[in-house]
Amino acid sequence: AAHGARKMEDYGRFLALLASSLLVGFVSVILSLVWVFHYREGLSWDGSPAEFNWHPVLIITGFVFMQGIAIIVYRLPWTWKCSKLLMKFIHAGLNTIAMILAIVSMVAVFDFHNAKNIPNMYSLHSWIGLTAVIFYSLQLFLGFAVFLLPFAPVRLRVALMPIHVYSGLTIFATVIATALMGITEKLIFALKNPAYSASPPEATLVNCLGLLLVIFGSLILWMASRPHWKRPPAENAKILRPIGATPEGTEVESTMTNSSNADKSDLRSNTEAARKQNIKFDEAGQRSTM
Amino acid sequence: AAHGARKMEDYGRFLALLASSLLVGFVSVILSLVWVFHYREGLSWDGSPAEFNWHPVLIITGFVFMQGIAIIVYRLPWTWKCSKLLMKFIHAGLNTIAMILAIVSMVAVFDFHNAKNIPNMYSLHSWIGLTAVIFYSLQLFLGFAVFLLPFAPVRLRVALMPIHVYSGLTIFATVIATALMGITEKLIFALKNPAYSASPPEATLVNCLGLLLVIFGSLILWMASRPHWKRPPAENAKILRPIGATPEGTEVESTMTNSSNADKSDLRSNTEAARKQNIKFDEAGQRSTM
Repeated sequence: AAHGARKMEDYGRFLALLASSLLVGFVSVILSLVWVFHYREGLSWDGSPAEFNWHPVLIITGFVFMQGIAIIVYRLPWTWKCSKLLMKFIHAGLNTIAMILAIVSMVAVFDFHNAKNIPNMYSLHSWIGLTAVIFYSLQLFLGFAVFLLPFAPVRLRVALMPIHVYSGLTIFATVIATALMGITEKLIFALKNPAYSASPPEATLVNCLGLLLVIFGSLILWMASRPHWKRPPAENAKILRPIGATPEGTEVESTMTNSSNADKSDLRSNTEAARKQNIKFDEAGQRSTM
Repeated sequence: AAHGARKMEDYGRFLALLASSLLVGFVSVILSLVWVFHYREGLSWDGSPAEFNWHPVLIITGFVFMQGIAIIVYRLPWTWKCSKLLMKFIHAGLNTIAMILAIVSMVAVFDFHNAKNIPNMYSLHSWIGLTAVIFYSLQLFLGFAVFLLPFAPVRLRVALMPIHVYSGLTIFATVIATALMGITEKLIFALKNPAYSASPPEATLVNCLGLLLVIFGSLILWMASRPHWKRPPAENAKILRPIGATPEGTEVESTMTNSSNADKSDLRSNTEAARKQNIKFDEAGQRSTM
C-alpha cells in the first residue's frame, strides 16, 4: 500500500511536470506569434521581412516544441498499453514534421536574405543551426533504419540505443541554444530607435520568450532522464522474466546503461541470463509486441 | 580474458575522449586569447574595451573549460584509488575557482558598461547569464552543505544526488548557450567596416571558437552520462557486498537512478538489502573512506 501511494505520488509529479512543459511550450508559441504580429510585419511569403518572420514561428513551434514532445512521448503512462510500434511511429512522425518545419523556416530566411541581398551563412547562429538540422536529419534517418524498419539485428539496436538517446538530447539542447542566438541577432538588427539597449517592450517580451525556451528545455531534459519514468518493457518480456525478479527491477535501469550491458552481452551463456537479455533487447526496440 | 580486453578497450576509448576534450578546451582558451590580443584591444582594467575583453577570456577559461573538467573529475580512473573526500575537494575547488572567474568576468563588463554609459542587463545574454551564475552559486553552496560537510543525513544525500547531477549538467549546457549568445552580440557590435555579414577573418575565427565550445560541451556530457565510466563504490562497501554479486553489478547503475532507489529505500528491511543500500549510500556521497 505504501508502495502504491508512492507510485501515485510519482505519477502526480510526472503529470505536473508534463502540464508545466506543455504550458511553457504553448506560451512560447503564442509569444512568437505576438512578436511577429504585434511588433513586426506579420507573416507572408514574398521576400519581405514578413517572410523572415516564419523563421522564429516555425522554429519555436516545430523544432523546439514538437521536438520536445517527441522526446518524451514514450514517457506518457497512458500510452504504455499501446504497442511499441505505434509509439515509434508517433515519435518518428513528430520528429519528421519538426524537421520539415525547420527546413521550411530555413528556406524563409534564405529567400528573405536573397531578396534583400543580405549574405547567407555568415553568423555563428547559421553555422550551428545548419549543423543541428543536418545532425537531426541523420538522427531521424538512422533511427528509422535501425529502430523502425525490421531489418537491423537486435545487437545493433542495443549498441545504438544509448547513442540515439544521447544524440537526441544533445541536438535538442543545441537547437534551443541556436534559437537563443537567433533571438539575440534579430533583436539587435531589428530594434533601432529605441535600440535593444533601451529595453523597449518588444525587447522585454522576446527576452521572456528566450527564458521560456530555456525552462521548456530543462523540463523536457528532466522528464527524459528520469529512469523510473521510462516505458516498462513489453508484456511478453514480462512473461519471460525469471520468477523472483520484481517488476521494478528493470524500471530502475537508465536509458544510459544499455551500452555497458551490450558490452557484456556476449559473455553470457546460461538460460537465465539469456532471458534477462531478452528484456533488454525489447527495451532497445525489438518489436516483440507485433 | 575477453572481459579484461573489453575493459582495456573501454579504458582506451575514455582516454581518447578525455584527450579530445582537453585539446578542444585548450584550443578554445587559446582562440579567445588570439581574439582579444590579435583582433581586439588586449587586456587591461581601466574601463576601456580592453577591460571588457576579460569577459570572454575568463568565461571560456573558467566557466566553460574548468567547469567541464570539474564535472568529469570523478571519472578519471587513476583517481579511483584516491579518497572520495579528496576528489570532492577537487570537484568543489575547481567549481569555486570557476565561479570566482565568472563573477570577475561579469564585474569587467559592468565596469566597462558604466564607463561608456552603456545600459546593463538589457540583453537575453545578460538575463540568462546572470541566472546561470546565481544557480551555479546555489548549486555550489548546496553541494558543499549536503555532500562535503559531514552533517547531512545519508537519506538526504541519496535524494539530492540525482538533482545535483541534473542541475550541474543543465547549468553547464546553459553556460555554453550563453557564451554563444555573447559571441553573437560581440561580433555584431564590434565588427563595422567590414561588418560581421562580410565574414572578415575575425568573424570566422570566433565562429570557430563557438563551434569548439559546442563540441567541448558535447564531449563532457557524453563522458559524464556513461554509467560504466562512473567511479566504483568505495573499498569498504566492496567488503560489505554480498558474496555472488559481481563488481560490475554496481557499475551499470546510472547516476540518474538514485532517486528511484531512494523512493524504495524505506521499504527494505532485511540485512542483505541493507548491505546493498550501504553501497548506494556510499555512491551518494557518504564519507565512508575517511
